[in-house]
Amino acid sequence: MNVTTPILRVGLAGLGTVGASVWQRLASQKDLLRQRTGTEIRVDQVAERRAEHARKCGVPEKLLVPDWRGLTDNPELDVIVELIGGTTVAFELISTALQKGKHVITANKALLAERGAELFQLATKHQRHLLFEASVGGGIPIIRALREGLVANRIVSIHGIINGTCNYILTRMNEAGLEFGDALAEAKREGYAEADDRLDVDGHDTAHKAAVLAALAYGFWVPPDKLYTEGLRGLEKQDICYARKLGYGLKLLAIIKADPDGAAEVRVHPTLIPQSHVLASVSGVFNAVLVRGDVVGDTLYYGRGAGGDPTASAVLSDLAQIASHFPQEQKARNVGHEALHSRLKTMDEIVSRYYLRLMVEDKPGVLADVARVLASRQIGISSVIQPEAHAGETTPLVLMLHDAPESQFQAAVQEIAKIGAVKAPPVGLRVEDFN
Amino acid sequence: MNVTTPILRVGLAGLGTVGASVWQRLASQKDLLRQRTGTEIRVDQVAERRAEHARKCGVPEKLLVPDWRGLTDNPELDVIVELIGGTTVAFELISTALQKGKHVITANKALLAERGAELFQLATKHQRHLLFEASVGGGIPIIRALREGLVANRIVSIHGIINGTCNYILTRMNEAGLEFGDALAEAKREGYAEADDRLDVDGHDTAHKAAVLAALAYGFWVPPDKLYTEGLRGLEKQDICYARKLGYGLKLLAIIKADPDGAAEVRVHPTLIPQSHVLASVSGVFNAVLVRGDVVGDTLYYGRGAGGDPTASAVLSDLAQIASHFPQEQKARNVGHEALHSRLKTMDEIVSRYYLRLMVEDKPGVLADVARVLASRQIGISSVIQPEAHAGETTPLVLMLHDAPESQFQAAVQEIAKIGAVKAPPVGLRVEDFN
Repeated sequence: MNVTTPILRVGLAGLGTVGASVWQRLASQKDLLRQRTGTEIRVDQVAERRAEHARKCGVPEKLLVPDWRGLTDNPELDVIVELIGGTTVAFELISTALQKGKHVITANKALLAERGAELFQLATKHQRHLLFEASVGGGIPIIRALREGLVANRIVSIHGIINGTCNYILTRMNEAGLEFGDALAEAKREGYAEADDRLDVDGHDTAHKAAVLAALAYGFWVPPDKLYTEGLRGLEKQDICYARKLGYGLKLLAIIKADPDGAAEVRVHPTLIPQSHVLASVSGVFNAVLVRGDVVGDTLYYGRGAGGDPTASAVLSDLAQIASHFPQEQKARNVGHEALHSRLKTMDEIVSRYYLRLMVEDKPGVLADVARVLASRQIGISSVIQPEAHAGETTPLVLMLHDAPESQFQAAVQEIAKIGAVKAPPVGLRVEDFN
Repeated sequence: MNVTTPILRVGLAGLGTVGASVWQRLASQKDLLRQRTGTEIRVDQVAERRAEHARKCGVPEKLLVPDWRGLTDNPELDVIVELIGGTTVAFELISTALQKGKHVITANKALLAERGAELFQLATKHQRHLLFEASVGGGIPIIRALREGLVANRIVSIHGIINGTCNYILTRMNEAGLEFGDALAEAKREGYAEADDRLDVDGHDTAHKAAVLAALAYGFWVPPDKLYTEGLRGLEKQDICYARKLGYGLKLLAIIKADPDGAAEVRVHPTLIPQSHVLASVSGVFNAVLVRGDVVGDTLYYGRGAGGDPTASAVLSDLAQIASHFPQEQKARNVGHEALHSRLKTMDEIVSRYYLRLMVEDKPGVLADVARVLASRQIGISSVIQPEAHAGETTPLVLMLHDAPESQFQAAVQEIAKIGAVKAPPVGLRVEDFN
């Protein structure tokens, strides 16, 4: 390592699911982050009461302090990452850290919704960053999109599916025809819902996130008790069925809008949306946020809204933002100096599934001939469609093939084209399954 | 205005569709951008050969120069925005600007794909920004997402629908059953395809953008002639039909992947994707980019990929990025100081469409009674479903209602609940149509 690489010293508070992922990912992505930010991001201290758990996470004993005050009292630390949750101790921790001149990163939407106004005032007063990419939408960079990508836009509206538990429940009610209680029980079995389900299912978590998005969009904090919040409890599957018949899907949405005259609305409730709308296709635990800007029009951001690693990705992006400008100077980060991968595959090397359409004479043995060519090149067939033949005409024979190298597929196609019963050049298309 | 507000001086090269939008939007969003960046972004000079056209765009004569050298020769300018397109003059303009110590913003993917390596080297040498958010995906902040939001991720793969013309053609072939030629002709009539359709339809524009995304993901520039590129020409609608029967949709994809061993693939071709995948629901001129990171998993970015205003939104975000750090110092921009909107509507004030399910006795006159209550509150009915009655039981009556104020809807529901034939508490759900 270059001895002149500056070091950003981090104090990590809390080793829950997200905290443990942040710890692990700062190790696994260390070189990448140094390369991309020009700074080494190093955890110098970890506050966690459960010493045994910290050991299991691989935190060396010498980094461990039992109390968060160990972090704020440490004059060496540049940034505190608050991942303890709750709104009392976390408030004390963050406000103390800012007062002591440390930058703060948090994923705590409940705290921001409740006391964000105070905390950001404090951050401004002490000229410190208070970053919160992980507070909404897990790994989806929605905060950055609103603050930077869409900085030139007045926000016309935001529609968010921002609670994975609720979206999982609604997806299962819709797809498997479950009633609410059964879908909730399944979500708990699958680990997508907490034992205490109230924060998620009754819409409060969505409301906290809505308050954060509204503050970004319109610059003021909506008190959580003034934010209309309706959750899923009491929903019946029959309403999902009728909605579907009418062309609608049902989602728990956070809705944030403003009139041109300046009046804003922020609300959370189950909402019917057209089945053809892209938000309707967001299923399972995925989150999505649709943002309409006055210049850009509609944009949408989609990804996993919870879980250790996705949330850690967001926390690390905040750390990287501070690291990029650390200690002071702005570093130009241009493209083409990373060369993480330096060899481009030729087309022959790629592996894909394929769709193959042949126009064939309708006579026995054609499929056998084609299958023989494919088999000779180790290309498996996953399905065949042969639409009804028209007498005296050629008929399409459509095959879906298993994974094969492009070179083998192309060679097979050339051979197949020579079969007497194949009457037109074969049509091949590649298939992506996103596995 | 605060007299100490710093001014970022911009030279704008080219007043085509995007250039004209940038000019207009810098005026309409001026106060917003000053508030958000702490800097005034001011166009001091515009290079455009067509003086009459510039006048029509509202550019004052004193700002106009006929030749781009007027911009690079002007020592006062801090940033040049290159929107002239092409790969010869634009290269000269950008390299001259960087050499003269100016930051550069461009939307020119063809130039980046062809000579990006040289240009970024030059930018690094002169320690200047070369920003290009507008080069891929129009107003979608995909460049920022890759560079900042996902900075902690190794990029496993990128799948992009990044040419609106092609996606429009494929959507029409699929939805309206058009053959390729007819869909292309329609796209031209609707203004979604250029008279010279080769750049879009043959996949070259997608390939240029794929090269930019690949450079961000893997740090090296793929020479455009080594990038496998297959466009839409020759596609037949029957293959779209068969693909649909097999559960697939057809999209022109840019595919960028890397093996753990460092070998990368970058290719552009029509591709079958599962109909249930969120990318399959991206229709018409919209763009979407799916990025899989090793920490965050799958994330997706969606929006309008072309057009003056969406592209201007991206150009302005690059200007704002430079302005935020201009002249030198990093300004903390915290939340809650904008107060663009300061009044929160009560729930009674919001206006929505509604779904209403009643459990009613199956006897004549019930619908009339319900309709009378709704009409008395000026709430229109857009459709009614009454599933078959079961003798002796209550039967559901489902209504979709037109826009109404929440207060009126709630009052109507209370009144309806009192109708004798309504046997259970009414179920109301709000509807969003994203209009």
